[in-house]
Amino acid sequence: KVLWTVLVTMLGCSSSLPVGEDALCTAEELAKYRIIFTGKWSQTAFPKQYPLYRPPAQWSSLLGVTHSSDYSMWKKNEYASNGVRDFAEKGEAWALMKEIEEAGEKIQSVHGIFSAPAISSGTGQTSTELEVHPRHPLVSFVVRIVPSPDWFVGIDSLNLCEGDHWMEEVSVDLFPYDAGTDSGFTFSSPNFATIPQDTVTEITCSSPSHPANSFYYPKLKILPPIAQVTMVKLKKSQLGLSAPFINLPAKSNEIIDTVS
Amino acid sequence: KVLWTVLVTMLGCSSSLPVGEDALCTAEELAKYRIIFTGKWSQTAFPKQYPLYRPPAQWSSLLGVTHSSDYSMWKKNEYASNGVRDFAEKGEAWALMKEIEEAGEKIQSVHGIFSAPAISSGTGQTSTELEVHPRHPLVSFVVRIVPSPDWFVGIDSLNLCEGDHWMEEVSVDLFPYDAGTDSGFTFSSPNFATIPQDTVTEITCSSPSHPANSFYYPKLKILPPIAQVTMVKLKKSQLGLSAPFINLPAKSNEIIDTVS
Repeated sequence: KVLWTVLVTMLGCSSSLPVGEDALCTAEELAKYRIIFTGKWSQTAFPKQYPLYRPPAQWSSLLGVTHSSDYSMWKKNEYASNGVRDFAEKGEAWALMKEIEEAGEKIQSVHGIFSAPAISSGTGQTSTELEVHPRHPLVSFVVRIVPSPDWFVGIDSLNLCEGDHWMEEVSVDLFPYDAGTDSGFTFSSPNFATIPQDTVTEITCSSPSHPANSFYYPKLKILPPIAQVTMVKLKKSQLGLSAPFINLPAKSNEIIDTVS
Repeated sequence: KVLWTVLVTMLGCSSSLPVGEDALCTAEELAKYRIIFTGKWSQTAFPKQYPLYRPPAQWSSLLGVTHSSDYSMWKKNEYASNGVRDFAEKGEAWALMKEIEEAGEKIQSVHGIFSAPAISSGTGQTSTELEVHPRHPLVSFVVRIVPSPDWFVGIDSLNLCEGDHWMEEVSVDLFPYDAGTDSGFTFSSPNFATIPQDTVTEITCSSPSHPANSFYYPKLKILPPIAQVTMVKLKKSQLGLSAPFINLPAKSNEIIDTVS
């Protein structure tokens, strides 16, 4: 069956049908990955206005999706959907889950939703499994920065397929984004809707260019990564109970503590 | 293969081998369910000390597991594990995820972990999918009550298998439990470890029998359910993209709003 898929896709290519970025994936049918999200939002790395109380610095649940290029969860310099706005502003996942399910229902652009538990501190880890498919090889997810007006970290449409095989492991440093829906400048800014809504923008050490901004560090060239995500392909024998997970430290912040 | 499993299990029974509660499951190999968690923690139903600010009433991520009777996530009148304590006190899932994975690794008592995103208000819904197996037909999960000292709601070892078939749908009303690890009496009590640790106890309208307790309603016979969980078996065609989910309201608290 795998071979058949390969042949069909090759025929598709050679007869010059319209080919999207994920139509080129000829890897085996399904692949499972363990996704490990690591928060690196420490007071040492981000001393400015670091939230210590009510609530202290922490991360929301992780909400993600595996999909084709016909779906986009969020994209830099484009407007956030209502679902992404609710999630980035309040950590409320329902509207975003509905958007994803509807995209899956209407245009078959979604393979599956996945989520991982919240992390109750700025540094720590969370994890879950995800499944990709040759027609749905892209991974996107969001994690809200708590507290914050509408800030999040995430991945937009990372392709886990490399031609005829699935990537074994991939790690990505993550930096903060502003969903463009709340004009708060600092972690604990009161709710203040941005009207009209702005696009999703990356927050850097110099942008927004205002000293009041929580990530404004004029002496830095770039911010240190505020989080990191690693996806590790699971062997068939590891499905359900994955060794990469077992081998992680007993406490979610052990790695972080030794690094910082 | 299904028939073969049935025969083996029947032989097992008739030759009077030791039979645990889940050894009797002769249903087809795997079943998937959509699990929908509904928070019913409204100010109307629970007016006493209802948390309005920093943080307002809300629910943590849901963390669950499908397993055999050789594993127990938590049990009334028994001591909570370190993982359940961390989760019930702080919403920190890592230690509990490690416990579950280790139980899966060492004694094959776990089929899979699942989680659903947090709910940012007392009333609202969250959802995910779970998979059960004839050798692992039990479902357990926990959701932390936020804010609270160490209070949670959950299910302990609900068997989704009924002899030779999987249940189509099951709903359970949920009531608050005290993990026995923090002696706080009210939603916003400061952290105050219970030493020695107490067992997991149900919190009722009369127990703990002290007027300061947030759930002490001496005029009530029983508390209204603070949450509800529904599990709906998915048809094969719904796997990955499930109709029961699509048919839910656009906003997670629409059902609740009309009820209360």
